[in-house]
Amino acid sequence: MRASPSQEEIRRYNLGALLRSVHVRGATTRAELTTSLGLNRSTIGALTAELAGAGLVSEEVPLSAGRAGRPSLVVRPESERVYCFGFSIEVDQLTVARVGLGGVVLDRREMPRPGGENTTKAVVAALAGLVRDMLAGIPPSARYVGSGVAVSAMVRKDDGRVRLMPHMDWVDQPLTEALVDIFGDERPIAMRNNADLAALAEHVRGVAVDCDNLIYLDGDAGVGGGIIAAGRPVHGHGGHGGEVGHMVVNTHGKPCGCGSSGCWETEIGEHALLSAAARDTGGGREGIFSVLDAASRGDAGAQSAVRQVGDWLGFGVANLVNIFNPEMVIFGGTLREVYLAAAAQVRSRLNRQALPACREHVRLRTPILGDDAALLGAAELAFEPLLAAPLDDALR
Amino acid sequence: MRASPSQEEIRRYNLGALLRSVHVRGATTRAELTTSLGLNRSTIGALTAELAGAGLVSEEVPLSAGRAGRPSLVVRPESERVYCFGFSIEVDQLTVARVGLGGVVLDRREMPRPGGENTTKAVVAALAGLVRDMLAGIPPSARYVGSGVAVSAMVRKDDGRVRLMPHMDWVDQPLTEALVDIFGDERPIAMRNNADLAALAEHVRGVAVDCDNLIYLDGDAGVGGGIIAAGRPVHGHGGHGGEVGHMVVNTHGKPCGCGSSGCWETEIGEHALLSAAARDTGGGREGIFSVLDAASRGDAGAQSAVRQVGDWLGFGVANLVNIFNPEMVIFGGTLREVYLAAAAQVRSRLNRQALPACREHVRLRTPILGDDAALLGAAELAFEPLLAAPLDDALR
Repeated sequence: MRASPSQEEIRRYNLGALLRSVHVRGATTRAELTTSLGLNRSTIGALTAELAGAGLVSEEVPLSAGRAGRPSLVVRPESERVYCFGFSIEVDQLTVARVGLGGVVLDRREMPRPGGENTTKAVVAALAGLVRDMLAGIPPSARYVGSGVAVSAMVRKDDGRVRLMPHMDWVDQPLTEALVDIFGDERPIAMRNNADLAALAEHVRGVAVDCDNLIYLDGDAGVGGGIIAAGRPVHGHGGHGGEVGHMVVNTHGKPCGCGSSGCWETEIGEHALLSAAARDTGGGREGIFSVLDAASRGDAGAQSAVRQVGDWLGFGVANLVNIFNPEMVIFGGTLREVYLAAAAQVRSRLNRQALPACREHVRLRTPILGDDAALLGAAELAFEPLLAAPLDDALR
Repeated sequence: MRASPSQEEIRRYNLGALLRSVHVRGATTRAELTTSLGLNRSTIGALTAELAGAGLVSEEVPLSAGRAGRPSLVVRPESERVYCFGFSIEVDQLTVARVGLGGVVLDRREMPRPGGENTTKAVVAALAGLVRDMLAGIPPSARYVGSGVAVSAMVRKDDGRVRLMPHMDWVDQPLTEALVDIFGDERPIAMRNNADLAALAEHVRGVAVDCDNLIYLDGDAGVGGGIIAAGRPVHGHGGHGGEVGHMVVNTHGKPCGCGSSGCWETEIGEHALLSAAARDTGGGREGIFSVLDAASRGDAGAQSAVRQVGDWLGFGVANLVNIFNPEMVIFGGTLREVYLAAAAQVRSRLNRQALPACREHVRLRTPILGDDAALLGAAELAFEPLLAAPLDDALR
């Protein structure tokens, strides 16, 4: 009645479910696992023993057992023994974190993006330098399981090429290949757009843990979106979905770097706020802060600029709310500050422009994980193969 | 090692997978099923015997066996013996189909939406009348498994209430309850927005069978969207996702019935084409055809109107392509005709406004299933509980 591979498939599925559960929730009692995974006690015991044997979890008697009787053992991810690297490549900054199973940041380094040669090889060499600085802190017995990379660019799903990173002038760059050259191909290296990964991180262990339909908006020089629908990321056919910054919102708008005009990012990106406030102070996050600061101190021009950009922010959010009916919209990067300064404009536009049924349950929020959301999402991406098949990976 | 419920879960999963396979693909040899489902021959034999015992499939020796040796038995869905009803409620028309397992339309009736009392009860009574007309044709041994309803309205996921059907002036109407009053609650009745169901039908057995990322655009008085991402529908938190007709595209646009202005449907809906062509001939599909016909016969005003609406059609499609990176966009309802008349404008706008990475593989298509796409999608929705658990349902 049952197909031959299926018993093994179930075991793999259950091993993955258990490991994922302690990875996401942290230390969990066997009793809680029995309930949450819907498996019986002996199965939980056997699965835990296998995972412990592979060095992925440990078990211990809880220090204070609340009730009488034999206390349920606590299963804990081996955060010090099993780790990945998460990388974040932004236009102006490179960041590396060594992240233990369970999402624990064990070490973290950052540097400005190096000047000079603007190639993928140069960027990857700089990342490798940051990793070298970390090596002394890694226990010899610790196991590296793979890497994840967040990049503020369009990343092709099939081969991990950077299809377009406009503010770096990268087109069709073999970034994954450059990483493999340095880190080897024994362990998987996965790459994805930074907004997609920030959405993932906030969904797994941030502000959106209880939301299965969410939009993460990430602002810097450009504007990107990470979208999760029914608990799963919306990447599109080639992996390029979520380019909400190039939704045209202003039919009489300014030219955009993409070749079109009136794109949302021309109205809410860094340059939009600075130019609305008539400040051409080089841009960047400092420029944004200076305008918001001036507005908070009563500068009428800055206040007007914040209101204008806030209204456009709400305009695009309303469109996305009608299209996705999300439970939550998260404002990340520079859009975090803009949203906090102009929440009234955003909400007012949303109320006028979005359908009541689509907006009535939507929550507008800022990231819990802050600027490291994409970096931590890169680590989640790196852990994915291990969580999908814990012992397959251990055997490699 | 294995949890106690899992063996049973596998069997259920495999029964569902086999039944779904013959439902979607039609008659299939055991040998093909062995390959496509990845199960061994004896398992396929046992599963098929169970499904045949429940009257869901039949087996027969193929008429012409191509090769020497014992021919592989053909497994066929029992389309005459197992059926559902699919309903379609449009502003101006009601349609009912009796659809057999395998997606075979066994009977189909339609009528204009009745005048007079505009209540859910009146509409459901009219649908019941159509069903009554079909009863004589139903063999006594045939088994009814449930109903699906496509309605050109916003449908709340939780309770199947019509949240809003603007062109019928329905707000928060208990349509599912009215259906249950007539058809009983012994078999499931599921309801969803018509564009969502048209997308489903074209995905399962239409133009998009090989596409996992698609957008179905449905035009009539309003404009709706059915979106499938990574093979799964994008419904949103409350089931109201896909309201692409209320994406604001024209910052200086006309007021929309929704209370906002410049919505996409004000630029590409029926009224937009008629008003651009300066024809206020009552609207409806005939009005659209008359403008398109005049344009094809050289009427300059009609041609200009078609170009204008085609350009706006491309404008919104370009935004959606940037947001979803779909493999296919399908133009349904009145948008089918508009697209066919203005494909050059649509493509031109797409090329100017969508990012190359997002648009480079997108195919623009019209529905294979024509105006019955939503009706057939309603039937797919009705079969879903049976396909998910074939024998559970048989035992009820």
